Amino acid sequence: MSDSRPIGVFDSGLGGLTVVREIFRCMPGERVIYFGDTARVPYGGRSVSAIKRFGMQDARFLLSMDIKMLIVACNTVSSVGLAHIREGVTEIPVIGVVLPGSRAAALRTAERKIGVIGTRATVGSEAYTQALHNIDNGLRVYSKACPLFVPLVEEGLIDTDFTRMVAQHYLYELVDTGIDCLILGCTHYPLLMETILATVGTRVQLLDSAFWTAKEAADILSALGARHPEHGSGFAESRFFVSDKTPNFDQVARRFLGQEIQDIETIELEDIGE
Amino acid sequence: MSDSRPIGVFDSGLGGLTVVREIFRCMPGERVIYFGDTARVPYGGRSVSAIKRFGMQDARFLLSMDIKMLIVACNTVSSVGLAHIREGVTEIPVIGVVLPGSRAAALRTAERKIGVIGTRATVGSEAYTQALHNIDNGLRVYSKACPLFVPLVEEGLIDTDFTRMVAQHYLYELVDTGIDCLILGCTHYPLLMETILATVGTRVQLLDSAFWTAKEAADILSALGARHPEHGSGFAESRFFVSDKTPNFDQVARRFLGQEIQDIETIELEDIGE
Repeated sequence: MSDSRPIGVFDSGLGGLTVVREIFRCMPGERVIYFGDTARVPYGGRSVSAIKRFGMQDARFLLSMDIKMLIVACNTVSSVGLAHIREGVTEIPVIGVVLPGSRAAALRTAERKIGVIGTRATVGSEAYTQALHNIDNGLRVYSKACPLFVPLVEEGLIDTDFTRMVAQHYLYELVDTGIDCLILGCTHYPLLMETILATVGTRVQLLDSAFWTAKEAADILSALGARHPEHGSGFAESRFFVSDKTPNFDQVARRFLGQEIQDIETIELEDIGE
Repeated sequence: MSDSRPIGVFDSGLGGLTVVREIFRCMPGERVIYFGDTARVPYGGRSVSAIKRFGMQDARFLLSMDIKMLIVACNTVSSVGLAHIREGVTEIPVIGVVLPGSRAAALRTAERKIGVIGTRATVGSEAYTQALHNIDNGLRVYSKACPLFVPLVEEGLIDTDFTRMVAQHYLYELVDTGIDCLILGCTHYPLLMETILATVGTRVQLLDSAFWTAKEAADILSALGARHPEHGSGFAESRFFVSDKTPNFDQVARRFLGQEIQDIETIELEDIGE
């Protein structure tokens, strides 16, 4: 049994392409339909009602493309709008990026102390804390918003003195709590992996939400017998949509996806119901 | 002769409140209708067509409120979409934030070398360079995008070591060119005035676009005999609209406006034509 339909993935912008990269790594035969709402990125600072509305519009656009699974690759929507989307989308599995990384961390922590970093919205929602406590109520969770990490990554300022100082500013207190696992709760953060690792030290294991989400998607599709036969390149047959073709799109997309996207399609916000 | 109608001011977000603050400083009797498109902020990284479309929608919303003048307090829209808005709005004066600061700098430079800092979109548009060359083609203009300044201001990280390092990273080369005037081509930058001044030194005069724009508005209204009689408080009768009530709105608004806004009204994007 197999299902050749594509996997739908959306994010507020291009950061979700880190999830797509991990999908191609662990399921190279799968096709992806990606949507990045680049006309309204970032969602992080918006109200909960706006985040829910935008997320549902993004989901509906992907559903119109006949997908077999929906991945909400946006931490903000996963944190505050996933239940809302699941209410509206009952015909296919819907997964977010919060739970997979939380499960992996809960399994790995020896000290039972887990750190979580993300945008202000993600941390403020306490979605990771709740997910971790649902898994094991005895876990101690320390979270910290790192709002400058996204612009640093988007500017390509990965390896500068002030990037390291910003990382220290955000992370030193977190390390002092004695955490042994740190969840990167934002799709941009994997690109800062080396700087974060150098700051927190090797005693702390970093958990990349993008990787664990792709792995969970693979597990679910396998369990449902819905994996696409692993021949041919899923990437070559994937499609990438944005709501606005921003000036340095190609460069940013390459940074997140790890390869060039040949053909990016633009849709109007009007077409997704705004 | 006088005109008691309000002045319409819009920005992609809340930064334009620095222009409103200057309006109340130099014209305390004037009422303002402000619109911040907080559901779609920032415009800086969007395509030119999106910037024009969003700007026109923002303008139309304010026009529906019977204003006597329209101030485009958004550097991005002023840079790439002002002509487009002027084509559609012929009944009242429309001014942007690019020309006023440029005029002031052109009058003040002794070395005839002017620096301009702004977002990537503003600098990329070369709007300040063109405006300055239209005034005096012999001026030498050196511009530099400082994309991290906005998130630093929005996070309130005004006085930190890495803010100073970021300022040095952006500004040292600019100072080496021998400029004696530096235009702050972004509504957020006045809040970094001290850090910028400490970096560039007192040899360089800083020109705040917000201040010069308010001054130009006052000059135009006076010339037209359309100033509101200076009694009563314009602020108390002003109205403030946003397209999304973001979580830390009050705090950010106070930082830009210098005082508390009691009543913020929210409008839906649908209502402005999106």
